[in-house]
Amino acid sequence: MPPASPSATVQQWLDDFGRALARADFAGAASMFGDESYWRDLVSFTWNIKTAEGREQIRDMLAATVPNAQPSAWMLLGEGSEAGGVTEGWFTFETGTSRGKGLLRLIGGKAWTLLTTIQELKGFEEKKREMRPKGVEHGVHPGRKSWLEEKQDRAKTLGYTEQPYALVLGGGQAGIILGARLKKLGVPAVIVEKNPRAGDSWRNRYKSLCLHDPVWYDHLPYLPFPEDWPVFSPKDKIGDWLEMYTKVMELDYWTSSECKSAKWDDAKQEWEVLVERKADTPSGAPETLTLRPKHLVFATGMSGVPSLPKYPGMEDFKGQQAHSSGFRTGVEWKGRKVVVVGSNNSAHDICADLWENGADVTMVQRSTTHVARSDTLMDLALGGLYSEAAVKNGIDTDKADLIFASLPYKALPALQVPVYQQMKERDAEFYKKLERAGFLLDFGEDDSGLFMKYLRRGSGYYIDVGASELVADGRVKLKTGAIERVEADGLLMADGTKLPADLIVWATGYGSMNGWIAKLVDQATADKVGKCWGLGSGTKKDPGPWEGELRNMWKPTQQKNLWMQGGNLHQNRHYSLLVALQLKARMEGLPTPVYALAPVHHKA
Amino acid sequence: MPPASPSATVQQWLDDFGRALARADFAGAASMFGDESYWRDLVSFTWNIKTAEGREQIRDMLAATVPNAQPSAWMLLGEGSEAGGVTEGWFTFETGTSRGKGLLRLIGGKAWTLLTTIQELKGFEEKKREMRPKGVEHGVHPGRKSWLEEKQDRAKTLGYTEQPYALVLGGGQAGIILGARLKKLGVPAVIVEKNPRAGDSWRNRYKSLCLHDPVWYDHLPYLPFPEDWPVFSPKDKIGDWLEMYTKVMELDYWTSSECKSAKWDDAKQEWEVLVERKADTPSGAPETLTLRPKHLVFATGMSGVPSLPKYPGMEDFKGQQAHSSGFRTGVEWKGRKVVVVGSNNSAHDICADLWENGADVTMVQRSTTHVARSDTLMDLALGGLYSEAAVKNGIDTDKADLIFASLPYKALPALQVPVYQQMKERDAEFYKKLERAGFLLDFGEDDSGLFMKYLRRGSGYYIDVGASELVADGRVKLKTGAIERVEADGLLMADGTKLPADLIVWATGYGSMNGWIAKLVDQATADKVGKCWGLGSGTKKDPGPWEGELRNMWKPTQQKNLWMQGGNLHQNRHYSLLVALQLKARMEGLPTPVYALAPVHHKA
Repeated sequence: MPPASPSATVQQWLDDFGRALARADFAGAASMFGDESYWRDLVSFTWNIKTAEGREQIRDMLAATVPNAQPSAWMLLGEGSEAGGVTEGWFTFETGTSRGKGLLRLIGGKAWTLLTTIQELKGFEEKKREMRPKGVEHGVHPGRKSWLEEKQDRAKTLGYTEQPYALVLGGGQAGIILGARLKKLGVPAVIVEKNPRAGDSWRNRYKSLCLHDPVWYDHLPYLPFPEDWPVFSPKDKIGDWLEMYTKVMELDYWTSSECKSAKWDDAKQEWEVLVERKADTPSGAPETLTLRPKHLVFATGMSGVPSLPKYPGMEDFKGQQAHSSGFRTGVEWKGRKVVVVGSNNSAHDICADLWENGADVTMVQRSTTHVARSDTLMDLALGGLYSEAAVKNGIDTDKADLIFASLPYKALPALQVPVYQQMKERDAEFYKKLERAGFLLDFGEDDSGLFMKYLRRGSGYYIDVGASELVADGRVKLKTGAIERVEADGLLMADGTKLPADLIVWATGYGSMNGWIAKLVDQATADKVGKCWGLGSGTKKDPGPWEGELRNMWKPTQQKNLWMQGGNLHQNRHYSLLVALQLKARMEGLPTPVYALAPVHHKA
Repeated sequence: MPPASPSATVQQWLDDFGRALARADFAGAASMFGDESYWRDLVSFTWNIKTAEGREQIRDMLAATVPNAQPSAWMLLGEGSEAGGVTEGWFTFETGTSRGKGLLRLIGGKAWTLLTTIQELKGFEEKKREMRPKGVEHGVHPGRKSWLEEKQDRAKTLGYTEQPYALVLGGGQAGIILGARLKKLGVPAVIVEKNPRAGDSWRNRYKSLCLHDPVWYDHLPYLPFPEDWPVFSPKDKIGDWLEMYTKVMELDYWTSSECKSAKWDDAKQEWEVLVERKADTPSGAPETLTLRPKHLVFATGMSGVPSLPKYPGMEDFKGQQAHSSGFRTGVEWKGRKVVVVGSNNSAHDICADLWENGADVTMVQRSTTHVARSDTLMDLALGGLYSEAAVKNGIDTDKADLIFASLPYKALPALQVPVYQQMKERDAEFYKKLERAGFLLDFGEDDSGLFMKYLRRGSGYYIDVGASELVADGRVKLKTGAIERVEADGLLMADGTKLPADLIVWATGYGSMNGWIAKLVDQATADKVGKCWGLGSGTKKDPGPWEGELRNMWKPTQQKNLWMQGGNLHQNRHYSLLVALQLKARMEGLPTPVYALAPVHHKA
């Protein structure tokens, strides 16, 4: 008998798996997985984001979820493929309430990775393509309202005579993208943004900022960037795009508005949220409103609140001090002394901006930093999924996102190490120069590089777009080590070195996302929800135990009806659909039994 | 020998054709066309828009253009196909200065239709996909300007210290779409728009207006509508889209600005144009400027200036009178008598709006009208190229536009007649009801229907979205015949009938596009350019002789460096690329010998 084709192999596995589940033979189904194996489910079975690792966890997760989910119709999608001993195939499936898509990888006939992900709720599909609205109701309809009148009516009623089902705090990229998803699903949502215009959270950053991720990684859902969009978007251009997007998607987006406080009303099973609207209100005057949404989504930025370290003497400094989030441009610092504390992305960008404007700049590096050259990173780490070449290979944004999602976090470091090994070799000369200048390099504790650092701690790296050259050749001075204290005219280092400064920029990062919960709800709720982001890898700033998924992101939390939406543009695009479907299912009263709600191991 | 495949047949024809042209055997090349045959060239050979009809004209056009164009590299694109005796194939080719695409149809081995169309200029390609800009210049660059600073600089310099190469008059859909094309090609252009916001030319129309063409036909270049965009866009929604598009495309778009006069300076070979800017000027105050562009593009709307008929007594009418372009909503006319003069799209929409708002409405039909039910029209006339089904069949917007362009105007009526015959049959009951109500129907003089009417005269039809039902059952009263005069309290018809009115809406269409040339340049130039639009079909409002292409649209005119851009969204999308490439080629000093500049047979 000739060996079965990859397609036949995948379909056979799916058939067997489906049959085992149908007869509730969960041990049998789990035995179809290999010794090292993962089943990552995005909402469709678990109403959670959850990776089961190994046969035992897989069996438990199947046993707990399959009776509710009632999966069926496991169908190969397109053709299977085989490479390097791994047989791979896309598939579709259904549950009782949803349609899903997945990716299966088999080694030696057993599953290595299985991804199952929700795509849409049956009966509540997005109204697109052949389902799109007609726009005009043909025929004659006395008293009919035009699109504009309906829009104007909604602006007067939503949040006033009609409560939003969800309230999204923060109208940056996270809030806007989630808002678009909710709008398409018909979930009434208000997005509250403190700035006067959508996109201002980008516009307000330092002048030279460009996205460090390339355009293929950054597309927003529903409306991809045009084909001539720059690889790295300048911040004002992405700001304008977000503003346009907000309007075109017809979001119920409140500008110049701020949430002052929020409290869960357990009796009514809803939130009570105090919101100040300073402009563009229906009345024309500033208003303070109490909103009563069922769900509260924090889209306040994964960077949370700016984090300023405490050093003795900070209050006595005679020059200016700014957190990096408040730094705009180096123009007025020509010929003056500036110390930038920090050695991650913002610190490097700000040093370069200051140097380009003629300032005398010193970077203070307090701990090792991972540096990856942008071109190399694009090429080695992202190019396979997010690049012009990937698009030509038929890997569109959706496909890339699902492939990305199919790699379990547990297995990811081992897959990343060789990529960064190659980077080290390719850019050996570059790293040698940096080290010669005294720069303290790392590639992550386990040499797994940038993306793992991002997932574990959201910091600790610089994607080099030019500033490393300045550091390497001393045009930007470098001082490594600990800071002793701030003096009236500069920084005193622990080794006794004095760094005179007219300006100190604290590029020292941001506090926990969770800080916003403490600020707007209360500390008890923040503690109950616990630390956000990170995997529990047991590496620096990501203490164990291992959790297997990002903490609290895009999934139910220990506080009922409180959600966290955030991340980079890629994550917001991909995970926003999951958040929106979880909210939509609840709004429509579908059963949403959450499997393995994550326990809290760390407060913040 | 087995019969050759369609692909082989097409490639063989292309090879033979290419060889004949290479040895300047134009008679031989022409002999490869059938007795009834057409070669339509869009710019690539002729630097004009020109259809050669029959072997003799084809031979002449080849002989005149091939020595300059130096075509080569005729390559089948994808697979050929065969249906109903017609073998068809897409192909690419090059000329000395450009790359082109075409569509060939063969009957019995001879060409029936050949389309050749320019796609891009060699060395001046749009910077997209792998050629897209990086967005940030990596490395360090003292004094570098951010994207925002460069944009702000351009707003201060273009039209002030730097002259635009092209000035586009009118910032409706035509000006915006052409502006986007020019921007992508790096042609400095200013677009002058009288309204305060892009999109206002749609917003300012009557409240109930929706596009009568479906979304698949309406996409703008570079940024297609999202997949949930309504089939028929409400006017305010399309207005917002145009405004967003203008910003995202970074057009140099002057709002609240008006061209007061323009004059060709033959010595300097440039235009001298007086422009008033009332808002958003660099100085902040209203400004009057003299611009000196090389090219002047009228994108003032194919409808030109509102056309009011002259009837005795109009000035003595005691009620209100409005041209349809000035009508907003029927809200304030509840219970009052309104006469709408006209029976085309606007007249019907306005009658329905008035009736829905409780007015007592009478439509005055002065001549026969073609009515096509929207659903039927979508289905029979557009569905094959512009529909969800077409998209699923792999016919994307570009492909649809080229297929559309490949059908020569001369051959089109014969292809349209059966479509409208089918429409008559399918909607027989509907037409019977309308006729019973006294409505005067036609299907065009030769029964070729709506699209031919649009091409020949741009008027004479209604796409029914509901108003015909009101006319048929008398809820909107109908009066056919000639108007004798306007009296103080209504209209007096030639048959003696008196139509009392509190409001008369003159839905009487628009003057020639050419009227804008007379208004802004002078009558002599308007006469020199001559009538715009229409084919010379010898039917009503489209006098002969036969011209074979729309007069003066998107191609060189008898006035040097004066261009007309307009039409529906489909035409603007498709032909704007041709206008932009014609301008770009001239800007770059490429040879652009125009073949057969159309003579003028009619002044307006």
